[in-house]
Amino acid sequence: MTSTETFPINSLDVPRFVGIPTFMRLPQRAEAEGTDVSVIGMPSDNGSPFRTGARFGPNAIRSMSAMLRPISPYRDGIDVFRTLQCADLGDAPVVPGYMPATLEAIQLFFDRVVATGAVTIGLGGDHGCSIAELRSVAKRHGPVSVLHFDSHSDTWDKYFAGERHSAGTPFRRGVEEGLINPEQSIQIGLRGSLFVPSDVTQSIDLGYDVVTWDEWSAMGSHSLINRIVKRLSNSPVFISFDLDVVDPAFAPGVQTPEAGGPSASEVLMLLRRLPALPIVGADIVEVNPLYDGPGQITALLAATVALEIIANIAAGRRERSIGQPSD
Amino acid sequence: MTSTETFPINSLDVPRFVGIPTFMRLPQRAEAEGTDVSVIGMPSDNGSPFRTGARFGPNAIRSMSAMLRPISPYRDGIDVFRTLQCADLGDAPVVPGYMPATLEAIQLFFDRVVATGAVTIGLGGDHGCSIAELRSVAKRHGPVSVLHFDSHSDTWDKYFAGERHSAGTPFRRGVEEGLINPEQSIQIGLRGSLFVPSDVTQSIDLGYDVVTWDEWSAMGSHSLINRIVKRLSNSPVFISFDLDVVDPAFAPGVQTPEAGGPSASEVLMLLRRLPALPIVGADIVEVNPLYDGPGQITALLAATVALEIIANIAAGRRERSIGQPSD
Amino acid sequence: MTSTETFPINSLDVPRFVGIPTFMRLPQRAEAEGTDVSVIGMPSDNGSPFRTGARFGPNAIRSMSAMLRPISPYRDGIDVFRTLQCADLGDAPVVPGYMPATLEAIQLFFDRVVATGAVTIGLGGDHGCSIAELRSVAKRHGPVSVLHFDSHSDTWDKYFAGERHSAGTPFRRGVEEGLINPEQSIQIGLRGSLFVPSDVTQSIDLGYDVVTWDEWSAMGSHSLINRIVKRLSNSPVFISFDLDVVDPAFAPGVQTPEAGGPSASEVLMLLRRLPALPIVGADIVEVNPLYDGPGQITALLAATVALEIIANIAAGRRERSIGQPSD
Amino acid sequence: MTSTETFPINSLDVPRFVGIPTFMRLPQRAEAEGTDVSVIGMPSDNGSPFRTGARFGPNAIRSMSAMLRPISPYRDGIDVFRTLQCADLGDAPVVPGYMPATLEAIQLFFDRVVATGAVTIGLGGDHGCSIAELRSVAKRHGPVSVLHFDSHSDTWDKYFAGERHSAGTPFRRGVEEGLINPEQSIQIGLRGSLFVPSDVTQSIDLGYDVVTWDEWSAMGSHSLINRIVKRLSNSPVFISFDLDVVDPAFAPGVQTPEAGGPSASEVLMLLRRLPALPIVGADIVEVNPLYDGPGQITALLAATVALEIIANIAAGRRERSIGQPSD
Amino acid sequence: MTSTETFPINSLDVPRFVGIPTFMRLPQRAEAEGTDVSVIGMPSDNGSPFRTGARFGPNAIRSMSAMLRPISPYRDGIDVFRTLQCADLGDAPVVPGYMPATLEAIQLFFDRVVATGAVTIGLGGDHGCSIAELRSVAKRHGPVSVLHFDSHSDTWDKYFAGERHSAGTPFRRGVEEGLINPEQSIQIGLRGSLFVPSDVTQSIDLGYDVVTWDEWSAMGSHSLINRIVKRLSNSPVFISFDLDVVDPAFAPGVQTPEAGGPSASEVLMLLRRLPALPIVGADIVEVNPLYDGPGQITALLAATVALEIIANIAAGRRERSIGQPSD
Amino acid sequence: MTSTETFPINSLDVPRFVGIPTFMRLPQRAEAEGTDVSVIGMPSDNGSPFRTGARFGPNAIRSMSAMLRPISPYRDGIDVFRTLQCADLGDAPVVPGYMPATLEAIQLFFDRVVATGAVTIGLGGDHGCSIAELRSVAKRHGPVSVLHFDSHSDTWDKYFAGERHSAGTPFRRGVEEGLINPEQSIQIGLRGSLFVPSDVTQSIDLGYDVVTWDEWSAMGSHSLINRIVKRLSNSPVFISFDLDVVDPAFAPGVQTPEAGGPSASEVLMLLRRLPALPIVGADIVEVNPLYDGPGQITALLAATVALEIIANIAAGRRERSIGQPSD
Repeated sequence: MTSTETFPINSLDVPRFVGIPTFMRLPQRAEAEGTDVSVIGMPSDNGSPFRTGARFGPNAIRSMSAMLRPISPYRDGIDVFRTLQCADLGDAPVVPGYMPATLEAIQLFFDRVVATGAVTIGLGGDHGCSIAELRSVAKRHGPVSVLHFDSHSDTWDKYFAGERHSAGTPFRRGVEEGLINPEQSIQIGLRGSLFVPSDVTQSIDLGYDVVTWDEWSAMGSHSLINRIVKRLSNSPVFISFDLDVVDPAFAPGVQTPEAGGPSASEVLMLLRRLPALPIVGADIVEVNPLYDGPGQITALLAATVALEIIANIAAGRRERSIGQPSD
Repeated sequence: MTSTETFPINSLDVPRFVGIPTFMRLPQRAEAEGTDVSVIGMPSDNGSPFRTGARFGPNAIRSMSAMLRPISPYRDGIDVFRTLQCADLGDAPVVPGYMPATLEAIQLFFDRVVATGAVTIGLGGDHGCSIAELRSVAKRHGPVSVLHFDSHSDTWDKYFAGERHSAGTPFRRGVEEGLINPEQSIQIGLRGSLFVPSDVTQSIDLGYDVVTWDEWSAMGSHSLINRIVKRLSNSPVFISFDLDVVDPAFAPGVQTPEAGGPSASEVLMLLRRLPALPIVGADIVEVNPLYDGPGQITALLAATVALEIIANIAAGRRERSIGQPSD
Repeated sequence: MTSTETFPINSLDVPRFVGIPTFMRLPQRAEAEGTDVSVIGMPSDNGSPFRTGARFGPNAIRSMSAMLRPISPYRDGIDVFRTLQCADLGDAPVVPGYMPATLEAIQLFFDRVVATGAVTIGLGGDHGCSIAELRSVAKRHGPVSVLHFDSHSDTWDKYFAGERHSAGTPFRRGVEEGLINPEQSIQIGLRGSLFVPSDVTQSIDLGYDVVTWDEWSAMGSHSLINRIVKRLSNSPVFISFDLDVVDPAFAPGVQTPEAGGPSASEVLMLLRRLPALPIVGADIVEVNPLYDGPGQITALLAATVALEIIANIAAGRRERSIGQPSD
Repeated sequence: MTSTETFPINSLDVPRFVGIPTFMRLPQRAEAEGTDVSVIGMPSDNGSPFRTGARFGPNAIRSMSAMLRPISPYRDGIDVFRTLQCADLGDAPVVPGYMPATLEAIQLFFDRVVATGAVTIGLGGDHGCSIAELRSVAKRHGPVSVLHFDSHSDTWDKYFAGERHSAGTPFRRGVEEGLINPEQSIQIGLRGSLFVPSDVTQSIDLGYDVVTWDEWSAMGSHSLINRIVKRLSNSPVFISFDLDVVDPAFAPGVQTPEAGGPSASEVLMLLRRLPALPIVGADIVEVNPLYDGPGQITALLAATVALEIIANIAAGRRERSIGQPSD
Repeated sequence: MTSTETFPINSLDVPRFVGIPTFMRLPQRAEAEGTDVSVIGMPSDNGSPFRTGARFGPNAIRSMSAMLRPISPYRDGIDVFRTLQCADLGDAPVVPGYMPATLEAIQLFFDRVVATGAVTIGLGGDHGCSIAELRSVAKRHGPVSVLHFDSHSDTWDKYFAGERHSAGTPFRRGVEEGLINPEQSIQIGLRGSLFVPSDVTQSIDLGYDVVTWDEWSAMGSHSLINRIVKRLSNSPVFISFDLDVVDPAFAPGVQTPEAGGPSASEVLMLLRRLPALPIVGADIVEVNPLYDGPGQITALLAATVALEIIANIAAGRRERSIGQPSD
Repeated sequence: MTSTETFPINSLDVPRFVGIPTFMRLPQRAEAEGTDVSVIGMPSDNGSPFRTGARFGPNAIRSMSAMLRPISPYRDGIDVFRTLQCADLGDAPVVPGYMPATLEAIQLFFDRVVATGAVTIGLGGDHGCSIAELRSVAKRHGPVSVLHFDSHSDTWDKYFAGERHSAGTPFRRGVEEGLINPEQSIQIGLRGSLFVPSDVTQSIDLGYDVVTWDEWSAMGSHSLINRIVKRLSNSPVFISFDLDVVDPAFAPGVQTPEAGGPSASEVLMLLRRLPALPIVGADIVEVNPLYDGPGQITALLAATVALEIIANIAAGRRERSIGQPSD
């Protein structure tokens, strides 16, 4: 591996549209060995009970990630890729139409990466994929604290003919399987109408803290950040970011849009102000380019969120290396 | 009529995309008898002086309404469809290219429904259809108080070769015909450039209260709600919701978008915080799927607004049945 | 059942865009009893190894079928709906992400309809659904002769992790399960590059007659019709029409387009010149509106093919009632 | 008027996308005086019983006409704009939602142009506009021979609530009003299913010659050209070209697409081989950019057809000036 | 020049979609003589290092500008076109693929217009065009104060093979060439990740004041207006408005969208509250209709911004004529 | 290099949408050493005088090439990738807005590949790129015979401000520079209107043989193949395939569509029946996904053409290895 392979192509030297798109124009690598952060596509939409097409989400995010640059002005001008070794590992394999086989195939791929110590950033794909990544991550790190952005709780039990895995179930399954520590987890951005009366309380009954969009809007982002930090309690963190957390104007390309949510700016400002967290894994899910329009703004937002999560990890690395927090 | 016919299909049992789409997967019925609320499509775009295609609006709203669920967390977890008998009555007929014949055909359809005592929820279709529904509703209930959300006043007099009916005229015609009591009506969200100097004052001259988007933004939603409630004075209310009231980012699929308006969240929070009103009819208009992009977020917002209006009616029903307000 | 329910809405009386769209504006019915032909949506894309979204195919076909009219000038001006009792039964239920459960659910739905003696016209949905309908039809009629239009043979064995059901397998499974009599079946329109050398012969090895597009183009439609009729041998016929049989210019909205095929006109002229066949079931599959563009020409062609198949059935009915062939 | 104003902008000098688009980059003029051929937009879709949006057709044709160049290799390299004085007169005014007022407004505009002796080329707009142009043209030239390309006859009588003017009626109205001489007129390209049994014969009953697409396909273009020429009998010709005459693959952007028609090449070869005809007017209608997809191929085909008609007129002019036919 | 030529077509008399679209339906004129404000398209995308297609931006803005009306309620009901003589001069010519030749051709066009004393409003086209207009404007007015709205600084030095002109360089080149007085200029709305550490300071090093979106959001619009006015110091002002300053939800049709910015409402309220400024030129750039979706909301916002800038000029004219400020 | 790297991913094992798309799922390699055929993207649209966006063409072709499979039934079931070592080398770099620098950068990239002896397959990108590849190829092989499919001759001299390189000039420049032997070259598919009278003869004057679409249609493909083979005279062949050679229905996603051309089937049948030719290079150009619609059928056709060219090379290799022609 030469050093030229460890940095992205510079878009001041070679235009963004030149070349086969990887995440942020990083080198594609077959193995995670030696990386701090590995980006992995999860091109499945088996878990989609409404719109389908998220199988094309990872490559859509990659294409739009060409817009991004490596320096974060929100974290003291840190150069993310000089702080962390990052790579795009391509996609985990999936089996269209066969959810259980798909989850196995995805987990197998993540197991191999997580075993190297790399932090995994999964690009979805529908939210049903999260359980596969959570199984891998928890196998190594134990039960994780989940920081979950979503307009829905995704803590339903069963769907249709009794199926236990879909985009609506991973945060119930994760608790049941002991992968998630709900007492140190928080769900943010929930809103909209509900299926059954128990929807209101099902996440709280499982142990999660829940902050609806109405509550967030009323309390302000500063208070919310404090609540998040306190809740996560410094334990290993898994961030799960469903693009439908923002208003559909900012992310039309999702499976189950929910009218009337926060703006992209409100969400990004929150992410950029979070202190460095002990992130062990993350996913950015429910990007569906078929519904995104020609501007592909959902994919761009997803890529930006992924970069902000990596920048958070980089900030943590820098803090540890210089012995003090960066903010 | 069996009981299974009175509830929507549950999207936890049968996926949202299965079946021919009615509003919120309610049963389609040929007659309004026995319903509290009847949803009726008004598939006309005869009144559209700019973009056309709103004839496909009602079915677009129906398709996206599959996203909605019956429980409102904004009104104490009320189950809308266990509180009210609701049905989708399909579309009123129209005559493309012939505005007067179209208004007659629509009114005839509404007359039959209104006569049963059902509250009508018209799904447009361009705003020119409103006069037909207003004629039906006022025939039974007398002049109504209008709660009108729009970026334009729609109180112009004549268009082109002197035509008196278009999307720009119903709230002048409604006053002239004695269908609307302007002294107890309010127009919310107006903004943008104007045709003639008298545009500024024409609604006020007719008797309406007018709150521009700039004024709303300055006064805040709490004050606006008070002003609305005071203005409506507890008389029979007709809500007319033109999707162009929100910024085009939140509703690109409209006839005459007006840049720079409120967000979907600002509008939905307002609607959800309105106390139960004595609603006798409503319409949600100017949804044009041809301009909505693949995400169809305008149609989704329209469906959500329709549900919020029905939830308001349900809350009123519950209040009356238990003898106290629900909030 | 009143007589008004047995005919479609007349588009000279009520514009095509008015009302919730059923197939050709036929009445939607909950039960098949009393129908000669029942149209049923199969909104599954579980079997799609490439593009997904065919779950929205049945409703796309319904919407575009509003263009069609009941009289066929290609069969002596027969009025299809005065010859046959037809109805739209809505959609069979499916389970997204769970192919085996989906096939069971679809078959269950068809079993009930086939039991009434109605001919079923399945609207897909991906080609993987065909096996469910074939199981129902063969249960009643015994092994069928298949008249199969497709650019691919769909006789592969297994996919990915050994899965036996996808859009690429039904015509192998159907032979294995004894549902299809391959010696009296024919596949038409195959073309393009192949996976493995055995692709060339796998259908022939199973017993099918195969006519590639190049062969059809060389022999002409007249010869092909003779070959079809001879092959089908007057046994119960199942027509399976995959929209990708035509060139992608005529059907861009499919899962696996194959460049360089026949035109829509060539295919429709063939269908319209086929003599009345003893059709016991049919499907028109692989319509994916997400890839069809605003013109929705794939859905229109699918609807037209469905009508031509029903017209063939009607012609057979008329022949039997007057004791002689119609052509 | 300087001479530079009488020729289009040369696309070898100034790129096609520069400037506000007129038809073929011709000068826009307010008056027809001095022109041999005047191109006029008819931006109405009042007569559209299915899809609407043809109001944007004329400008879509103008935009795509930038692709065209002035020399026709199919007519001995004639330079159309050095043979004829041509101009784009902009659009006739219309009244959305009011068909009768629209037809009056269009006719008034054409009357003024036709009075100057200019041949009018109407760009639609829906086919319902044709009656307005026919009234103008026949007022000056007497009853015309119509050469009508269409997949439908457009000779229905009334629609919906008895309305007499729509895209489906002009060729009945034109005969009734004495504007068309049906005995010297011909309809080409008809196909597809029909509303009522009399559809088969209604055009023939009115006196038209009718050549369906199936018949054209069987007889070949050479025979068809002979039949056309013989039928038109050297009397003043009005060409009416409905884009839906070609298969929807070649013209997806139309109101009422009809699957399975001729290719663009088949139609253009026919037009290019027609001898010079005594054309007094023409229209190219039913272009709807909202359904045309990003490629806008329907608009391009419409522009090309318009140019071929103008080239026919130019060839006639040249023949008369040199005293012999050009082919 | 007759008086009818100096006002736009009234959209209450002639529908907005009738006619070949000029900016706000103003007359198109070949020469600027006698105009106060001349609108000029700059249809180049040679300077686009990512998405291309802005060559179609000027006509997209023209089409959507039909929505606008001449009276501004934000400036005491001023009628813009009765205060100022305005015209659309069409497009400056460009040379695709040849940036230097393009900048020369654009400048030549502007030179001729600026020489008449008219204020120029350039409609882009990519931001690389700005340097051409700045050269013309500064030639007459000396170095200008720039009020620059953008999510990027556009003060990079060279791109790719050392090229000095692209959408990322005009505000460095403008300082280097002495066209811009950076000490009296301000850049507003910057945000997002950066290429190199010096990106953070490069604009400040050149002398600009910079207000990031985060800073604007924290300080509020009132403070920002004060800062702008103070900074511009009453010297000749050039406004450069890059549509990507707003969040991509409000302007998806841009070359380099940057997630998480202000809303259209926030930007328009700012513009509408600016006092009359001594504007000598402006451009509204980076509108790319190919990425704008069917709603074309980016083009509408661009047109609205252009009108607000013209209204600012009109307000200044009125102030001067009545000897006092209008607000 | 392991053997697994030399074959494409099998789409029966891993679904087509999994992974970052290379041409036909071949391995991406940094160097051409050891390959027989190297596929190279040329993502430039600097040479586009009308529509732009072909910079995204190479990746669009790669995405759709996932549909293709390695066995050609048209050449005795040859397995292309077991006969030839093939790889995707990614894209040559380009400089947006600077045509001369772009042509240099592209040529430099090809020079390095051609030097290894690999046959280059360029994926465009606009046709202006061809001159760069021709310079590389001719440098090694001497003047080539060009087999050129196009609806335009691309033998114009200069554009706009005298620029010598654009999509309309490479086949004049190539002759002038001695890269092309026009006496052994042939242009196929020309049609449509022309700029100047000399357009008709300019290619013939340069020495090319020209077969218009009308001539091809009249002579039939069999005769045309004979004419091609005779013309090429067994000298080194360069195939240049402009997607606009087919009718826009089959390739809407091109820069300069020309209505009324051959079908995809007619072109593919021709290519598949060509005997093995001594191909030393090829390009497939003018694919513009921005105009291709969601079906991306232009990109699919381009990928299919590329495969047919590679299959031709493979057939030649097989012939030489077994000492006899394959057909």
